[in-house]
Amino acid sequence: MSDIEIARKANKKPIQEIGAKLGIPSQHLLPFGHDKAKVSAEYIKSVSGNKDGNLILVTAINPTPAGEGKTTTTVGLGDGLNHIGKKAAICIREASLGPNFGMKGGAAGGGYAQVVPMEDMNLHFTGDFHAITSAHNLLSAMIDNHIYWGNELGIDQRRIAWRRVLDMNDRALRQITTSLGGVSNGFPAEAGFDITVASEVMAILCLASNLEDLQRRLGDMIVAYRRDRSPVYCRDIKADGAMTVLLQQAMQPNLVQTLENNPAFVHGGPFANIAHGCNSVVATTTALKVADYVVTEAGFGADLGAEKFFDIKCRKAGLSPKAVVIVATARAMKMNGGVAKADLGAENVEAIKKGCANLGRHIENVKKFGVPLIVGINHFVKDTDAELEAIREYCTAMGVEAVVNKHWAEGGKGIAEMAQKVVDMIEAGGAAYKPLYPDEMPLAEKIETIAKEIYRADGVSMDKKIRDQLKAWEDAGYGNLPVCMAKTQYSFTTDPNWRGAPTGFELPVREVRLSAGAGFVVAICGEIMTMPGLPRVPSAENIRINDEGHIEGLF
Amino acid sequence: MSDIEIARKANKKPIQEIGAKLGIPSQHLLPFGHDKAKVSAEYIKSVSGNKDGNLILVTAINPTPAGEGKTTTTVGLGDGLNHIGKKAAICIREASLGPNFGMKGGAAGGGYAQVVPMEDMNLHFTGDFHAITSAHNLLSAMIDNHIYWGNELGIDQRRIAWRRVLDMNDRALRQITTSLGGVSNGFPAEAGFDITVASEVMAILCLASNLEDLQRRLGDMIVAYRRDRSPVYCRDIKADGAMTVLLQQAMQPNLVQTLENNPAFVHGGPFANIAHGCNSVVATTTALKVADYVVTEAGFGADLGAEKFFDIKCRKAGLSPKAVVIVATARAMKMNGGVAKADLGAENVEAIKKGCANLGRHIENVKKFGVPLIVGINHFVKDTDAELEAIREYCTAMGVEAVVNKHWAEGGKGIAEMAQKVVDMIEAGGAAYKPLYPDEMPLAEKIETIAKEIYRADGVSMDKKIRDQLKAWEDAGYGNLPVCMAKTQYSFTTDPNWRGAPTGFELPVREVRLSAGAGFVVAICGEIMTMPGLPRVPSAENIRINDEGHIEGLF
Repeated sequence: MSDIEIARKANKKPIQEIGAKLGIPSQHLLPFGHDKAKVSAEYIKSVSGNKDGNLILVTAINPTPAGEGKTTTTVGLGDGLNHIGKKAAICIREASLGPNFGMKGGAAGGGYAQVVPMEDMNLHFTGDFHAITSAHNLLSAMIDNHIYWGNELGIDQRRIAWRRVLDMNDRALRQITTSLGGVSNGFPAEAGFDITVASEVMAILCLASNLEDLQRRLGDMIVAYRRDRSPVYCRDIKADGAMTVLLQQAMQPNLVQTLENNPAFVHGGPFANIAHGCNSVVATTTALKVADYVVTEAGFGADLGAEKFFDIKCRKAGLSPKAVVIVATARAMKMNGGVAKADLGAENVEAIKKGCANLGRHIENVKKFGVPLIVGINHFVKDTDAELEAIREYCTAMGVEAVVNKHWAEGGKGIAEMAQKVVDMIEAGGAAYKPLYPDEMPLAEKIETIAKEIYRADGVSMDKKIRDQLKAWEDAGYGNLPVCMAKTQYSFTTDPNWRGAPTGFELPVREVRLSAGAGFVVAICGEIMTMPGLPRVPSAENIRINDEGHIEGLF
Repeated sequence: MSDIEIARKANKKPIQEIGAKLGIPSQHLLPFGHDKAKVSAEYIKSVSGNKDGNLILVTAINPTPAGEGKTTTTVGLGDGLNHIGKKAAICIREASLGPNFGMKGGAAGGGYAQVVPMEDMNLHFTGDFHAITSAHNLLSAMIDNHIYWGNELGIDQRRIAWRRVLDMNDRALRQITTSLGGVSNGFPAEAGFDITVASEVMAILCLASNLEDLQRRLGDMIVAYRRDRSPVYCRDIKADGAMTVLLQQAMQPNLVQTLENNPAFVHGGPFANIAHGCNSVVATTTALKVADYVVTEAGFGADLGAEKFFDIKCRKAGLSPKAVVIVATARAMKMNGGVAKADLGAENVEAIKKGCANLGRHIENVKKFGVPLIVGINHFVKDTDAELEAIREYCTAMGVEAVVNKHWAEGGKGIAEMAQKVVDMIEAGGAAYKPLYPDEMPLAEKIETIAKEIYRADGVSMDKKIRDQLKAWEDAGYGNLPVCMAKTQYSFTTDPNWRGAPTGFELPVREVRLSAGAGFVVAICGEIMTMPGLPRVPSAENIRINDEGHIEGLF
């Protein structure tokens, strides 16, 4: 059966029953249909005094076209923990709507380790992204409107730092000119649209601890500069209050369920290549107050997702993760070892041994954050014993345990062994989380530290203009912010085709941006696209409601 | 107390209890929070064999800055009918999000005749408009994407008839150029955004009888023309299936409640000046299957809203309204009689007698549709007995009863007298609905018929190009469509300042547009704005969540 066929056969329970597993009373669950709910802000406040459960991060090797199953493992581990009698919840990100009409939509997990309702999660879900789109574009309209009515703030219209967003793959909107057509339409200007997940509002929603913090961060966003280069803030435009009103409901985390009827928080969805790529702080902290074990994931490989999880999310939200799972597959190891996708079906132990260098580097990297780790091998039916054994041997040599997990085929019981090992690891109490670099390190040095310690670059190339910009931000009081690296997810380098464990390269920093509201400095390395386009034959052409009333073509 | 203070003190019942009043089982109500729900498509199908209740239209004189209270009367009449023991529901339109950040948001009714939850209804509500925005812009992206990848359909890029939409007041987006920045962004082109309520997708959602009809109509939309002027349809772009998937949930009508806990369907929200301005056919027909009396309204004055309600909505949906209420106020009569807004506080019977000419013409017009009518005078505290008596006398002279209603201050019992009269009128069985013109009348003649019969213009000025265009559409098989007039709502003429009952004018038709999916030909008379702008001090600047957690500044 395909993922969607399995998902459609799910024996879903009313969302109130799922909430009850965590002790959330039904009046504090705002239902969206019968199988989705938002947890009320009042309830979240009421449990703030509870003891925190144990936070487990699931991360992975660099993604390959073979697929790794990071979300599948996150879902499976949550079910596995419940299977062995623990009170566990998972926390994952929401899917972006636009890209589903280009390529097929993403399931939340796979096989018997999925979160449902899958259709809703790939469509409007509970409307969070629409709220972010509205809030973002309200600010855009208010900036242009301010200039239209006299520009009292003295905005330099050539230096507007705030674009517009749509949750749509639409390359025609990347670069546009606005306000054409005469006096009543304003002053013609260059502008453009990004996809909603790339919005700083999205990053803020995912990092804010509550509504007050949300509004303060929105107010802090820099939207433009004056001719003297002084910044104009969202607060100056007086948009922060209305944006907060638009986002009030979106700030409440969404509760759904796994195929095994275990609780799953699905909230927030920032890009992991240009933003910090983690689900919301509100969802994670709430889950920790109501569950003993919380399994979450971070976008892409450990070089991007886990590093940002530790250095941005955990640092800023005061989280202290207790264990890390690094997901690997025999297939992905083979691709890292140089095998083409077409040849993945054949056993190739040598390629696996070679490809394990990628896994090894992620293991070394994660160890730097002080949290004990385990390798979860996501089992595929064609994997051979010799291949799996080769990965295990490699991990043992590095002093790390590796477990083969069969949650895809068997659900929670297929990953129960690893779930128990994770619990044992946590109970052994070895976790002592620490970020990679201290707050007070200069910004350029933070970039260099990540480049050298995590990517293993020989150094960073950054021209004087960028160094001056970083220095100027330090002088303006932003020096204590962490750095958010924007880089291809496919390689430790900026070359997406350079797999394995590269050495002997420099990391080129092309541009730096200040996300003053989200609270990080973005360092853009290589090419990054903030508004995707549709392919020659978009999947939208085949999406429809079939005669049985099912959505076809979305998955 | 203000409207919002009254609304906040509402003793709301769980939406399942409201549904139960109409016999809708809770498993067929898809909840959105505890006080909103969508009625499932399965349930709607299951009651399709029920006998229809009685449909009552609430319309009004031409709107003035004094306010008429058409929605207030609609809500009040629904409560009044329930008050006298009838099983009644109301059907109104959803509010547009964008304009709320310019001027203050619109309440759904006022005083003790309101629909709640008011905040939600002025914000994201159940996400219907966001779904329409997504579906509309998916088609826009797919058109440009088709051209980008080779333009197999041979679209003339200068003749793209499909813009983009946002639910935002953003004048900067009215006229733009897209696809700048080089090869990978496409071919530079002129484009623009309208506000979401102006979308043909909105009109279609409001006129479609079910999902199949929705998809067929979406497919029928003309999105561009080739060099030989032949049309390219949405179906050719293959976007209709995915758009239907995006709109599947939005097609289900929303159920909320009045302050007196009576059922209110709130669904769809097309502009009444450029579209047909009525709530959805699905909501109205569903309400008629589950209630004995259904009160609905049409946008703006009877010249625009009621005419379109009869000639487009009723004609196309096979509805047969049984009674009409025309709402008038002493204040609005005075303004129609030449009194300035500042002087409305003083008694002025002479001005009322003069202003009644506007009411009189609407009475004559509505009579042409064969449905019995009554005038509902919406009482304001400063109205004098002499003023109210003057309106009543005028109506009596025209052979129409007029009742003073106090639902604003007293809720349903304040309008019980008129509710009973409406019931008596319906039971007397005098209704024999007929449209103003037959389907087979040529398009230009339909426009002239409305101009002369409803607006009382001496004639229509329309240049040869427009007449040729109408003729071409007739030849292409669109001659049987009704006409949707786009005209200012403030006057029978195209001059918004010409109040009262003007004569001796021509109606200039500036442009005609074919909405092949919605199923009407739009005749644009005078200036009509499809993307509003924000005022000098947008209300958004004062919208915020206050210390009690209430939304401030939205109302």
